[in-house]
Amino acid sequence: MNTLYEHSTLASLMAGNFDGTITLKDLLTHGSYGLGTFSGLDGEVIILDNEVYQATSSGKVNHITDMNTKLPFASVHFPKDLIELSPENADFNYVNQTLVKEQKLQNVFAAIQLKGSFPFLHTRIAPKQEKPYPSLLEVAQNQPEFTFEDLTGTIIGYYAPAIFGSVTASGWHLHFISDDHQIAGHVLDFKAENLSGNLEIFDTLQQHFPINDSDFRDSEVDLASVKEGIEKSEGSSNK
Amino acid sequence: MNTLYEHSTLASLMAGNFDGTITLKDLLTHGSYGLGTFSGLDGEVIILDNEVYQATSSGKVNHITDMNTKLPFASVHFPKDLIELSPENADFNYVNQTLVKEQKLQNVFAAIQLKGSFPFLHTRIAPKQEKPYPSLLEVAQNQPEFTFEDLTGTIIGYYAPAIFGSVTASGWHLHFISDDHQIAGHVLDFKAENLSGNLEIFDTLQQHFPINDSDFRDSEVDLASVKEGIEKSEGSSNK
Repeated sequence: MNTLYEHSTLASLMAGNFDGTITLKDLLTHGSYGLGTFSGLDGEVIILDNEVYQATSSGKVNHITDMNTKLPFASVHFPKDLIELSPENADFNYVNQTLVKEQKLQNVFAAIQLKGSFPFLHTRIAPKQEKPYPSLLEVAQNQPEFTFEDLTGTIIGYYAPAIFGSVTASGWHLHFISDDHQIAGHVLDFKAENLSGNLEIFDTLQQHFPINDSDFRDSEVDLASVKEGIEKSEGSSNK
Repeated sequence: MNTLYEHSTLASLMAGNFDGTITLKDLLTHGSYGLGTFSGLDGEVIILDNEVYQATSSGKVNHITDMNTKLPFASVHFPKDLIELSPENADFNYVNQTLVKEQKLQNVFAAIQLKGSFPFLHTRIAPKQEKPYPSLLEVAQNQPEFTFEDLTGTIIGYYAPAIFGSVTASGWHLHFISDDHQIAGHVLDFKAENLSGNLEIFDTLQQHFPINDSDFRDSEVDLASVKEGIEKSEGSSNK
């Protein structure tokens, strides 16, 4: 069994439920690699081999060791049955188009990990929000973006089928962290060289819901606006 | 952990992938109660305490004991942490409206089991299809429907949030079987008396994908037509 664990849903984030509903301690029992965000939508989380990093909207990257830190949304997995990838040169389009076709990903969940040189990288980082929380759409319209040249680092992320597009980000959802752990973020575009890495195809999605959280339970989900919002706030990483 | 196990997706059924991709033997390791359909969309399956019944479109109900029988789509669970329900009189509207509001189900998966007298029951039963399989939408437009009076029996079914509407049937998806196991089907409407039963709210959806099935992997899912098709083929049980 190849399992991807997801905590909460993108629809819940869209509704402005930014308070954390799972601790890092609990989350890491479900996977050693992954991505997510912290309470208040405080940055972009990347988890590599049980080490947790947070890219904050100032551009600074923190190594998080307080396992009581909470997340409102996260995806993790324990790597297994890896398919090796070694695209000499690759870019955002390779991952989003070529790889999806070659590996027939359109109806499955998958994870990717790619390490190498990045002549070009374009990222964004969610800025921490204060209560009363706005919707994710409002946040998304005003997020710091960054561009870099000549980095070395790792991209990790997940692919989700289109029919899960209100549950999680459909298509690829990719985060980056540099080898020196000084630069990280949500990937909007990249060009890379000498990449090596791997792909895992999941047969199981373990979707967890924070059913004891009253904000989660009480949310009114307006499906049409969720879809529009997700397209605007997450869309640029899925094209 | 309260887990609902689902095998494959409604979108895959919509695409006409009616060949079974999980055996009853395997399915029953994930739950002792549930519902689904057999290869070729051959009827409505209801699983009660590990016993498997099949309502066929002729109206006949079979007790299935061959554990190698395969299903293209199914949902099962092991009942746990049950919330008792004892609605004196209830109907389709009670389950779809009142219960959803009272128990705040809109953003969670849940299971229901209700046993009692049914002065009125309206069902449909999917007729077995031959290859080349049509789409689920085509099948749905020509399904035998049945009405009954004065039965005693059990309704079991699952509630899914709207954002999962292309993954599984959103809202309630209910199957019925009479106490004498002679009448069963997919519930379109009912009126009931002296009901007793229970509700379970799941914090985990274990969504399984038949990733080694080439039909599943190769399917082109057109999201817009999937949604339209699901509305037409499953909609009447969700209103």
